[in-house]
Amino acid sequence: MDLLEKLEKERRAVNLEVQKTLVGKPDRIYSAAKHLCLAGGKMVRPMLCMLSCEAVGGKRMDVARTGAAIELMHTFTLIHDDIMDGDVLRRGQPSVHKLYGVPTAILAGDLLFSKAFEICDPRAYRILARATSEICEGQELDISFETRTNVSEDEYVEMIRKKTGVLLEAACESGAVVGGGTDEQVEALASFGQSIGLAFQIQDDILGVTADEEKLGKPVGNDIVKGKKNLIAIKALEALKEKERKELLGILAKKSNTDAEIKRAIELFQDSGSIDYCKKKAREYIKKSDSSLHELKDSTARKELKLIADYVVKRDL
Amino acid sequence: MDLLEKLEKERRAVNLEVQKTLVGKPDRIYSAAKHLCLAGGKMVRPMLCMLSCEAVGGKRMDVARTGAAIELMHTFTLIHDDIMDGDVLRRGQPSVHKLYGVPTAILAGDLLFSKAFEICDPRAYRILARATSEICEGQELDISFETRTNVSEDEYVEMIRKKTGVLLEAACESGAVVGGGTDEQVEALASFGQSIGLAFQIQDDILGVTADEEKLGKPVGNDIVKGKKNLIAIKALEALKEKERKELLGILAKKSNTDAEIKRAIELFQDSGSIDYCKKKAREYIKKSDSSLHELKDSTARKELKLIADYVVKRDL
Repeated sequence: MDLLEKLEKERRAVNLEVQKTLVGKPDRIYSAAKHLCLAGGKMVRPMLCMLSCEAVGGKRMDVARTGAAIELMHTFTLIHDDIMDGDVLRRGQPSVHKLYGVPTAILAGDLLFSKAFEICDPRAYRILARATSEICEGQELDISFETRTNVSEDEYVEMIRKKTGVLLEAACESGAVVGGGTDEQVEALASFGQSIGLAFQIQDDILGVTADEEKLGKPVGNDIVKGKKNLIAIKALEALKEKERKELLGILAKKSNTDAEIKRAIELFQDSGSIDYCKKKAREYIKKSDSSLHELKDSTARKELKLIADYVVKRDL
Repeated sequence: MDLLEKLEKERRAVNLEVQKTLVGKPDRIYSAAKHLCLAGGKMVRPMLCMLSCEAVGGKRMDVARTGAAIELMHTFTLIHDDIMDGDVLRRGQPSVHKLYGVPTAILAGDLLFSKAFEICDPRAYRILARATSEICEGQELDISFETRTNVSEDEYVEMIRKKTGVLLEAACESGAVVGGGTDEQVEALASFGQSIGLAFQIQDDILGVTADEEKLGKPVGNDIVKGKKNLIAIKALEALKEKERKELLGILAKKSNTDAEIKRAIELFQDSGSIDYCKKKAREYIKKSDSSLHELKDSTARKELKLIADYVVKRDL
């Protein structure tokens, strides 16, 4: 990937901070905590933090540790989410609770959480704390949607804003704050982060049914099996005729689906036009993020932020 | 309890901060997060924080919020511990995961964790973060001891220092820091907190086999069923003759014990003298805590800290 190559130096710096932080005893909890970090995350959040810092006049390397803190925070949420959702694969690897058992996986998540606060900049810790509270609220909403059949688009957007948007927002906001940005700059970058966070999650949902399974690192159609009410499902349920709607609801409600059922659900998504709707929606959020960026002076960092935004909707993993 | 009556105003202030903090949506995660807070904790940690603040010249009410943060942190560890240990009772109530299921219980713990960082004093957040990392390490050690038969007293003390000592230490340390204490005062109070933390955990282990079940709020002999290697078990295994030692190891290794087996294990503890040994050990730590206190000037707060220390080994719940 072009962008990731371009930002290779930054990714290495963040990775070094992550490695330096995750050293301690007993070995077992630190191995568990490191497992997903070593499985190769894209590090979008630390990049956003560093570029936001530079975009307001700071030095990107000054927030490498805070960027690492945000990556630890993100990894903590992935580990706990996988336990809650019963997901056994992540980034093409067995999930942490699958390898180490639920107790150590809970603890590894908690450890990443506290380590994040140990290393983040003092000016960023409250931003991160508030974001994490919202992430918890968002995850609870996501779970509660599984058993509902009438989730609206607004409810979905509120859920992914909390579950995904706020951490990308916090990454940009904390970078801008540490970089010494004005209130207007901090607000513009926070808004940029939130918009690409929403686009990111919608794109994730799309990839969950359209991507190549090997690239995806987890089963295609996972959300269908779990009955997740993501925007694809919501818009399909709104658009389909009664018979097809009932058929889709039946597949979503069933807890263990056959490959044929998953394929049929994806067919219904395609027929209803909901996947195209979601692609359009993701592009709209990227467009919105672009207008937030234009409140900042032009700079290399701003150009790179724009590249990240474009990458969000173009990526295939 | 005399002491709790004496500190009723402080407990109410902390409780109010806890209540104010745990307001939000969705209802379900906030109810889950509040459940144990409403079940009536002793609030020893917030009291330590407030009195440490005053003992160095600060105002105790200035750290009511930070005290509340520490109580939230403590509650978060209880909720996650209960999931890991499969404990279904806590403070005489069903545990959070028993009432709300594991996913919401994990989230409720995470939420309490982030809320703690939202409300704690900026001068305290890193102290709390470091403490929580050690708590995770301690809990992992505790779990790993269950399947070992040769845990030493030193290993046990290191485990409870991390699992219990550091949070009481952090409570005193953060109170002293926010109160503007000198390095020597902060160190003396941190050391005081750690000593009573160790005494507190040993007393907890003793109460786990000697207390009245109703007061205890959970089954007597719970640690025996789980095969926990607390100091009572360690000293008994060291002191017993081969035949009784094997009998005790057999009971500890069994995952579901009869009432008769639990009674027999407690009898073996009594016979070996290990319960008396633990009582002596707890009193030694309280004595040590007292010499830390004497590095501070005499004051009402210092007298109250002494009362808390004495309470730790005298309490029956």
